[in-house]
Amino acid sequence: MEPSTRPLVEDLTGDPEIARHFAAEAELAAMLRFERELAEAQAALGLVPAEAAAAIGRAIENLSWPSAAAGVQQGMARDGVPVPALVRALRAAVDEPHAAFVHGGATSQDVVDTGLMLRLRAVLAELQTRLGTLLASLDALAARDGTIAVMAQTRMQAALPFTASDKIATWRAPLAGVLRRLDERARHLPLQLGGPIGTGDSFGSRFAELRAELAGRLGLADAAPWHSDRTPILDMAQLFALLNGTLGKIGQDLALLAQSDRGAIRLAGGGGSSAMAHKSNPVGAEALVALGRFNAGLLGLLAQSLIHENERSGAAWTLEWMVLPQMAEASGAALRIADELLRGARFQKP
Amino acid sequence: MEPSTRPLVEDLTGDPEIARHFAAEAELAAMLRFERELAEAQAALGLVPAEAAAAIGRAIENLSWPSAAAGVQQGMARDGVPVPALVRALRAAVDEPHAAFVHGGATSQDVVDTGLMLRLRAVLAELQTRLGTLLASLDALAARDGTIAVMAQTRMQAALPFTASDKIATWRAPLAGVLRRLDERARHLPLQLGGPIGTGDSFGSRFAELRAELAGRLGLADAAPWHSDRTPILDMAQLFALLNGTLGKIGQDLALLAQSDRGAIRLAGGGGSSAMAHKSNPVGAEALVALGRFNAGLLGLLAQSLIHENERSGAAWTLEWMVLPQMAEASGAALRIADELLRGARFQKP
Amino acid sequence: MEPSTRPLVEDLTGDPEIARHFAAEAELAAMLRFERELAEAQAALGLVPAEAAAAIGRAIENLSWPSAAAGVQQGMARDGVPVPALVRALRAAVDEPHAAFVHGGATSQDVVDTGLMLRLRAVLAELQTRLGTLLASLDALAARDGTIAVMAQTRMQAALPFTASDKIATWRAPLAGVLRRLDERARHLPLQLGGPIGTGDSFGSRFAELRAELAGRLGLADAAPWHSDRTPILDMAQLFALLNGTLGKIGQDLALLAQSDRGAIRLAGGGGSSAMAHKSNPVGAEALVALGRFNAGLLGLLAQSLIHENERSGAAWTLEWMVLPQMAEASGAALRIADELLRGARFQKP
Amino acid sequence: MEPSTRPLVEDLTGDPEIARHFAAEAELAAMLRFERELAEAQAALGLVPAEAAAAIGRAIENLSWPSAAAGVQQGMARDGVPVPALVRALRAAVDEPHAAFVHGGATSQDVVDTGLMLRLRAVLAELQTRLGTLLASLDALAARDGTIAVMAQTRMQAALPFTASDKIATWRAPLAGVLRRLDERARHLPLQLGGPIGTGDSFGSRFAELRAELAGRLGLADAAPWHSDRTPILDMAQLFALLNGTLGKIGQDLALLAQSDRGAIRLAGGGGSSAMAHKSNPVGAEALVALGRFNAGLLGLLAQSLIHENERSGAAWTLEWMVLPQMAEASGAALRIADELLRGARFQKP
Repeated sequence: MEPSTRPLVEDLTGDPEIARHFAAEAELAAMLRFERELAEAQAALGLVPAEAAAAIGRAIENLSWPSAAAGVQQGMARDGVPVPALVRALRAAVDEPHAAFVHGGATSQDVVDTGLMLRLRAVLAELQTRLGTLLASLDALAARDGTIAVMAQTRMQAALPFTASDKIATWRAPLAGVLRRLDERARHLPLQLGGPIGTGDSFGSRFAELRAELAGRLGLADAAPWHSDRTPILDMAQLFALLNGTLGKIGQDLALLAQSDRGAIRLAGGGGSSAMAHKSNPVGAEALVALGRFNAGLLGLLAQSLIHENERSGAAWTLEWMVLPQMAEASGAALRIADELLRGARFQKP
Repeated sequence: MEPSTRPLVEDLTGDPEIARHFAAEAELAAMLRFERELAEAQAALGLVPAEAAAAIGRAIENLSWPSAAAGVQQGMARDGVPVPALVRALRAAVDEPHAAFVHGGATSQDVVDTGLMLRLRAVLAELQTRLGTLLASLDALAARDGTIAVMAQTRMQAALPFTASDKIATWRAPLAGVLRRLDERARHLPLQLGGPIGTGDSFGSRFAELRAELAGRLGLADAAPWHSDRTPILDMAQLFALLNGTLGKIGQDLALLAQSDRGAIRLAGGGGSSAMAHKSNPVGAEALVALGRFNAGLLGLLAQSLIHENERSGAAWTLEWMVLPQMAEASGAALRIADELLRGARFQKP
Repeated sequence: MEPSTRPLVEDLTGDPEIARHFAAEAELAAMLRFERELAEAQAALGLVPAEAAAAIGRAIENLSWPSAAAGVQQGMARDGVPVPALVRALRAAVDEPHAAFVHGGATSQDVVDTGLMLRLRAVLAELQTRLGTLLASLDALAARDGTIAVMAQTRMQAALPFTASDKIATWRAPLAGVLRRLDERARHLPLQLGGPIGTGDSFGSRFAELRAELAGRLGLADAAPWHSDRTPILDMAQLFALLNGTLGKIGQDLALLAQSDRGAIRLAGGGGSSAMAHKSNPVGAEALVALGRFNAGLLGLLAQSLIHENERSGAAWTLEWMVLPQMAEASGAALRIADELLRGARFQKP
Repeated sequence: MEPSTRPLVEDLTGDPEIARHFAAEAELAAMLRFERELAEAQAALGLVPAEAAAAIGRAIENLSWPSAAAGVQQGMARDGVPVPALVRALRAAVDEPHAAFVHGGATSQDVVDTGLMLRLRAVLAELQTRLGTLLASLDALAARDGTIAVMAQTRMQAALPFTASDKIATWRAPLAGVLRRLDERARHLPLQLGGPIGTGDSFGSRFAELRAELAGRLGLADAAPWHSDRTPILDMAQLFALLNGTLGKIGQDLALLAQSDRGAIRLAGGGGSSAMAHKSNPVGAEALVALGRFNAGLLGLLAQSLIHENERSGAAWTLEWMVLPQMAEASGAALRIADELLRGARFQKP
């Protein structure tokens, strides 16, 4: 608990486990991994001496953090991108005559975008696990309460009776669809490698081989340079928005089912009130609605960065950095909250 | 040209050919097609007498528009959905004793959502055609001007020289990706059929067969009811936003390349100025940027409707109706403008 | 009723009375009014012969619409702005030797932005009237039902009892605030006059006098040129979003109060269902929520156009034209629906 | 520098000086200040014994942070609001028999909303100072470079020549308007005091006096309870969006003026590139564009929370907490960056 620097709302809607993948330390580690594997891939193709790649690998292992981090952070503020300072620090740490092979042919965007993809893979893995757990919680809820009668509501009015099973099925189906998409997306996270202006020329005539080699080493999908084509970023954002919108719908339903006059469900661990001791507030359900609306709005903001002018837009790229990590964290938080909430939910007999 | 009812901006950013698929007449026709094929599908399965289906079909053919339309429009204002009035008008037009088989087992959402999918298929077909044409225009531009040197620009500064071919390739690749997605999406537009509360019970024990039969007749994908799962709507919206964002990026690039101090491209048909006779404004390029930002913002708004409370949300559903057609029309307009613009573009030798 | 060209949803959420102020005909009329009063103001200051101003006035009166409209619409598509074609048509219609005095010193943005302000004044007047009526309806509701007990709800749970009067007061107070803002805004709608690059130099040394004279004639506030400062546009958009958000909150409350299990209010004229004859749907309440979310999202989109590059941005300006009229119409519709809804509402004794 | 927990982008677009007002510690301090002054105000009116108010004040001074903070953070996660845990901790710390007077009559929303206003006042003061400095920097730039000729650009094309002074004036005027609005807003930040359901009844018959007394002590504007009327929050958000949009326009202009082919301005401290040593990137200008688009999009998201259902919406309120602090911080960052950028800018003679 660090009371001094974080807003209180993060205790409710934050997700430290997801957030840490977007912290400076994780970003630096991912960028260094790119530099190391780039050198290794170039060595594997004979484009760089094996000793150079080894020297770069050793330097990366020994690079002392957080001392180097301060320089990179200053570089970020000055250069608008952390890579120039990072490469400078790395070159200084590599034994001569190998320093010249550091970052060979690459540009900032190769490092930053690939580094992001490496971290998104870890994020997706975590979300997949959590979503699997949530589906199991829904199944358990249906197994226990499924036969209880529930009045279906359309357009805010009682429609016809169905069962808790029917209701749960409307929550489960779209979530199962999101899980399939998370799996699919995780398998298609693309390498970014293009060099200064995205043509790959700086990597020489064996660019295609190098790309395939590096993608394989990093466990990413081989892909043509996508410096100014931000489709992969929008795809991630849409998935985070879809996940949170789907969970927001569940949260809205739970809050409606749990209303005092309705009483169709009971939620464990309701929040207390400072003024009304009798109240038990559906805090988690409300948080799901807030997180759903949050990612919906951020999707529309992120999509503005598709208009990525010229061969590299600092403005559009920076906007991505400000928005996408928040969406990922909001997805993690929504999954965490939804599982707690549904584990503690009990449909009530009418 | 109808000067009295439409804003002038629609002469620039509108697309009547796409808009007509969202006009009342097209919506009514699609809904009637659903009712007709539902009766036919039920007859094919022996759930409804063949004569009833035939009578319904005849009534639909003879239903006199626009006289019936007025009633449906009034019904829309009163019921928040056009289907009750439509079904009433249809039942009145069907020879007895067949009227009772009209709309058998169905609910408003089955009609409206399926009707939307039928019209989106037509929209997608038009967009696919236009995008194919645009890709051909890009190829022609590359064939003619591809060897001309262009200075690549990163972060709003000259970077390194490449060629018009390289530049055009950065525009073409994401568009080719969008075309693949349009094709894919067109093949997966889902039927909506679930009955009053989305369980399918109102259609009897052969619901699964009926769904498959109806989907086949309408040329849509068979799908479980998705009344409160709006993933298919978000998928369409994301595609419209991705297309317009990709074209907006091209428009931004063209406006930058055509700047007076840069002069790297010449655009035909530049707009005139009321005050400065010497000017030739990159009107189409600017419109592409506006249309790109427009669909990006609307995507974030549309995504709010994922929080579709209960078994059917009038509020969230209405919001979709207000937003999605605009996005489709903006996509059509952007494709039309982009093709005109790129056909008239000429890279200039430095 | 024009079934062929408008979407059905407009029968629910559209507002023809507001929309007509944004139709081509109204826009043309407003632009011509600008041109006429500009010439008159210049004549009043002795900058232009009185006969020229008179000739321009006559030409404007005789200009035959819609024949001239077609040319302006084509000009809009070509020039990205209607003014060059409009000025050309007007000059052709003015008896010589006066044609040269048409549009003297002005630029497209002067005409379009001022024309917009003239129409927004009419829109604001209409909204003020409707909001006044709505406040009276709320007062009548409180007078009739005010003493009925209502259970206040916080965080979706019953809190403590209060009365219908208390409840209505929470709706009325922010609406009264919006009415004050509409009044204030209507009195500060600014003239736009700056000439080609916004410096006013094209109007000669008596620019300040001319601006004051013209503002007075048009009933607008005198203001320095705001070509690339879009604060006045954002101010309007925020007001439309605030109004619709406030009404959306009322709609959400009404839909919650009217739930079958709650029954705290009865709404007249509930919408019918195509499948469930017993239902009475809170159609207007749901439409208010949709209209509230609509204008909220559009506000965020409109705000993107604050980044108005250089001395005049075609892209940002076009985006305004696509968004602001929709927001105004949505405000008109929300006021109309809210008044109907609240006139027909009856609080129910517990 | 804390490399481990913050994303690198915050070194560019973050603003620790603004962010600290939204950190848990500042929020706790503001809430305790509310509780203390509430007791004092009640004592001043004779509603509470003076000894009780004194005991509460002493307890607040001695409350040991961060030990108490952990409890509040856990309470936040459980209750969805920090106040129940805070009040419990405070009551435990107050000498008997005075504990019962803690939080007398108040509800969570009184504490949280008033606490926010107290912190926004500090934020506004900081922004006012920075904006004053920025205006002075613009004046200095105009004084030094004002006579240099600049080619005005409309619709991305050269229009007519004007001067650096003219150009700077288009930046200065809307910023001066924003400064006036910041001043105005700072003087009207409203107290929130309404009790459990916003009627003030829990404070007894002298509620109006108490409100005025408390507002005076806190330096806030007296105001009727606005629990479910979020106008004051939207007003703040619009101001942050307007400020950042205005600065984003300046950033866009600077990036365009500084283009290699244009060369109309030189920016000091341009960012380095990892691949192209010759480059000097307009990092600050691009960051201003990103920050402008960021707050524009967040404004649209924040506006969704106007639909604040019932007497208190946990969902809508939580969404405010997630969005508004980010907007404030983005405004601080934009002002900081703009001032650096404009101090280092030099218009270049053509």
